[in-house]
Amino acid sequence: MNLKEANHLEFVSNFDTFLFDCDGVIWQGNDLIPGVKQVLLELRKLNKQILFVSNNSTKSRKSYLKKFESLGIQASVDEVFGSAYCAAYYMKHQLAFPPNKQVYVVGMHGICDELESQGIKYCGSSDDNENIKDMAHIGDIKHESDVGAVLFGFDVDLNYKKLAKAFTYLQDRDCLFLATNSDLTYPAAGTIFPGTGALLAALSAPLERQPIVLGKPHQTMLDCIVDSKHLNRERTCMVGDRLDTDIAFGKLGKLKTLLVMTGVTNQETLNKTDTIPDYVIDSLGSLKLIN
Amino acid sequence: MNLKEANHLEFVSNFDTFLFDCDGVIWQGNDLIPGVKQVLLELRKLNKQILFVSNNSTKSRKSYLKKFESLGIQASVDEVFGSAYCAAYYMKHQLAFPPNKQVYVVGMHGICDELESQGIKYCGSSDDNENIKDMAHIGDIKHESDVGAVLFGFDVDLNYKKLAKAFTYLQDRDCLFLATNSDLTYPAAGTIFPGTGALLAALSAPLERQPIVLGKPHQTMLDCIVDSKHLNRERTCMVGDRLDTDIAFGKLGKLKTLLVMTGVTNQETLNKTDTIPDYVIDSLGSLKLIN
Repeated sequence: MNLKEANHLEFVSNFDTFLFDCDGVIWQGNDLIPGVKQVLLELRKLNKQILFVSNNSTKSRKSYLKKFESLGIQASVDEVFGSAYCAAYYMKHQLAFPPNKQVYVVGMHGICDELESQGIKYCGSSDDNENIKDMAHIGDIKHESDVGAVLFGFDVDLNYKKLAKAFTYLQDRDCLFLATNSDLTYPAAGTIFPGTGALLAALSAPLERQPIVLGKPHQTMLDCIVDSKHLNRERTCMVGDRLDTDIAFGKLGKLKTLLVMTGVTNQETLNKTDTIPDYVIDSLGSLKLIN
Repeated sequence: MNLKEANHLEFVSNFDTFLFDCDGVIWQGNDLIPGVKQVLLELRKLNKQILFVSNNSTKSRKSYLKKFESLGIQASVDEVFGSAYCAAYYMKHQLAFPPNKQVYVVGMHGICDELESQGIKYCGSSDDNENIKDMAHIGDIKHESDVGAVLFGFDVDLNYKKLAKAFTYLQDRDCLFLATNSDLTYPAAGTIFPGTGALLAALSAPLERQPIVLGKPHQTMLDCIVDSKHLNRERTCMVGDRLDTDIAFGKLGKLKTLLVMTGVTNQETLNKTDTIPDYVIDSLGSLKLIN
């Protein structure tokens, strides 16, 4: 249902917590969406809890803060819940990942930073940016004996060596398989490119194994957020621009959902979807919370 | 059925042409399988046509000849039908790929050599081995305007730039999508690693498009072989070590099939399969053709 202006305060009064996707909701690329800064300030005045929930695993919570700062938006580390942090949180708090094991990372420094923040040992990532020279050298790849998990996230420096190492670790079914998210595409430069879920397919296809995914719409992420922030699901609203990630995430998790039209979803897509949001607004910046 | 020695000459008399997979049939890695050299010579004496049919797209027909030579096996360029050559043959003879278009190659020099042999223009491959520095530079990738197809093969130097370029070309549904093979794993160094089909999944997953595959067990390859060599399917036998590629290839194509046990298939797998070969022998080298 479309949020009419008269109802905005009433709508907000139903919730204690708002979960916000970022790209397409708060900003578009490097540009803040008009009005959003003010709406966030007003939600704070109304004592609403604010959490930023993103699938982008290339950024740690601290990197996100820098982005918020550069756009002039107030935020704290505790309000950011990215998929890199979620993966590290899950490994520490849900899995109690053994301290004598390490995780092999396919992904970038955002993931490594968050694993460090949770005291989890890791290897891989940029240490394996240099590929093997040719297949004749495939047998020379060194494998660590104490790898207990592979964590896969977006990696612009993905190469065959990283895939081969992760594949070899994961052929042992006791080695855990985790991914920060499964988005098939990555929006950038005004178009789309292959996303984490695409790169991940190069591993899950030959393994015939699917990872535990710590990003939207997978509920392991929401379970981590609810657990970490002690949320009441009935008083929580998920705000996003994507039906298949944000809105599905909220609906599967029994949250209320608000779709904004400032991102990837247009009216035509909305008319055809089975993933129907509870509320729709043209932009988060249009929320009128002052009489 | 197991080939009993007494029947070997009778078995061979049913065929004019033998299609041989290479790895696991003729050689294992760099070692010739005992007796195979003699059997091939005897088949030649019986005036049988011999073709070597391989999914490995990293080698051109000429590279294959070097391998045959190094192992002391007689072979000619016309007897080699690798998936790289098959792709080039298909583009020229079946698609009549327009001379004013070029093909974007994800793959290694074996593919490029074979495209050149058929006079097909190409770009990509090792020219794109240098990846983009980071996602901030993704918009700087230069795309050629005359790319009419993407040809995907095994590429140990696969990187994000190549995937992003291929993805961008293939979002245009008029751009043809071809792959040399779809093997999920690549046997090397006594174990397995992700194969062409694994790497390919990173492209087909986000595109929701499947390529035309020019390797076993896909029948486009067999159609090219039959067309090119004017084979009589009823008088042709496919010899291979893999049920899901070689034997399936022959069975789907109405050829007779001979499984050898010198490669990836063991008796336990054979007992459980639905892909039942017409004949089984412990090794191609065991074929007794002299009384």
